Amino acid sequence: MSILLIQHIDRLKKLLLEVGTMVEAALQKAMRAIESRDVLTAQEVIGADRQIDLKEIDVEEECLTTLAIHQPVAHDLRFIVAVLKINRDLERIGDLAVNIAEQAIGLEGQLPIDLDQFGIPEMARQAQAMLKQSLDAFVELDTDLAQQVRQADDEVDQIHRNMYAKAVAIMRNSPDQIDQIIRLLNTARQLERVADHAANIAEDVIYLTKGQIVRHSHSDV
Amino acid sequence: MSILLIQHIDRLKKLLLEVGTMVEAALQKAMRAIESRDVLTAQEVIGADRQIDLKEIDVEEECLTTLAIHQPVAHDLRFIVAVLKINRDLERIGDLAVNIAEQAIGLEGQLPIDLDQFGIPEMARQAQAMLKQSLDAFVELDTDLAQQVRQADDEVDQIHRNMYAKAVAIMRNSPDQIDQIIRLLNTARQLERVADHAANIAEDVIYLTKGQIVRHSHSDV
Repeated sequence: MSILLIQHIDRLKKLLLEVGTMVEAALQKAMRAIESRDVLTAQEVIGADRQIDLKEIDVEEECLTTLAIHQPVAHDLRFIVAVLKINRDLERIGDLAVNIAEQAIGLEGQLPIDLDQFGIPEMARQAQAMLKQSLDAFVELDTDLAQQVRQADDEVDQIHRNMYAKAVAIMRNSPDQIDQIIRLLNTARQLERVADHAANIAEDVIYLTKGQIVRHSHSDV
Repeated sequence: MSILLIQHIDRLKKLLLEVGTMVEAALQKAMRAIESRDVLTAQEVIGADRQIDLKEIDVEEECLTTLAIHQPVAHDLRFIVAVLKINRDLERIGDLAVNIAEQAIGLEGQLPIDLDQFGIPEMARQAQAMLKQSLDAFVELDTDLAQQVRQADDEVDQIHRNMYAKAVAIMRNSPDQIDQIIRLLNTARQLERVADHAANIAEDVIYLTKGQIVRHSHSDV
């Protein structure tokens, strides 16, 4: 591998991690907005998404440039294609953080409610940890960590399923809470999708290191 | 461009359209299952998703092979990267069809309800048309058609927003319908995501033909 290609690949990795850092911050802020019903913080998340979008385009352009200049093969080619895919997953997580922030704005002025009973803080904690670990697994090409991320996805799905019956029961008994509960259901659904994207990233890492396609090898939906 | 590269690119296009056809069929069937509460059809959609997943992997492998063998640059390189991205969008639409089919199974045995009042059949019609048009735009490299798809996405978002107030009102008045209405809200949300993915495909077509990045140039969320 030429020194120039090594430099380009390092640069791609660095750029991708910058997207990752922005997305992690957006998600964290969006959840803080949900938990503290803080409309200003929610609006910040929405406003900052443009930066993530621009960065996504940067990364994609850089991938195309690297492909065109170096015409890499084998592992390097797979690495760049993995960056393209992870980049898109990260950008989508940014969009999900915006969706969560929008739910937070809709919650303004509604009655206080215990989020723990729905498992929302736990889902958020796990989804954020999965995102962080999937990026760590990418940096270190650590397949064990990537496998852990995939397993954690099943747990998040389980919390999400458990939430549903509880939410319907509250809506039945407290029709005034329906709007709020739907917003919380939406929030949980976005978190579940964040976890799915983190699992996608983990699968790309496994593919990259082992050349083995693990996605779709268990029920994804 | 070498004859072999032309052949490879034709083959990629053909493979991608095969994924498109499978995904269109899955979506159509899933909506039929919702409208006629047909659990068997819903189960068929869920069972057939594995084929879509395998096909997605085929397309990706074929893209990597084409990149490695021909080391294309400029337009050809962008074309192959576009195929990689559209491939992923299509596979996700397949997953959304599965989600819709799962809602259809949950609707079994619930009271009949008028779907038109929520705009669900209209949303489904538009999302399916967008998907078809986005693939047509890709085949013909037709940017005008791609632009139409992007505009249609705003209409789908509007129908989706309008549905919400109506759904909450029904849940308030008929608590027994809450479970059903949530499933219909979920269905509408999946349709809205189908439309988003079709708009992504349209944006990739515009990028491919004009070299101009239009995604993120209006509010995507």
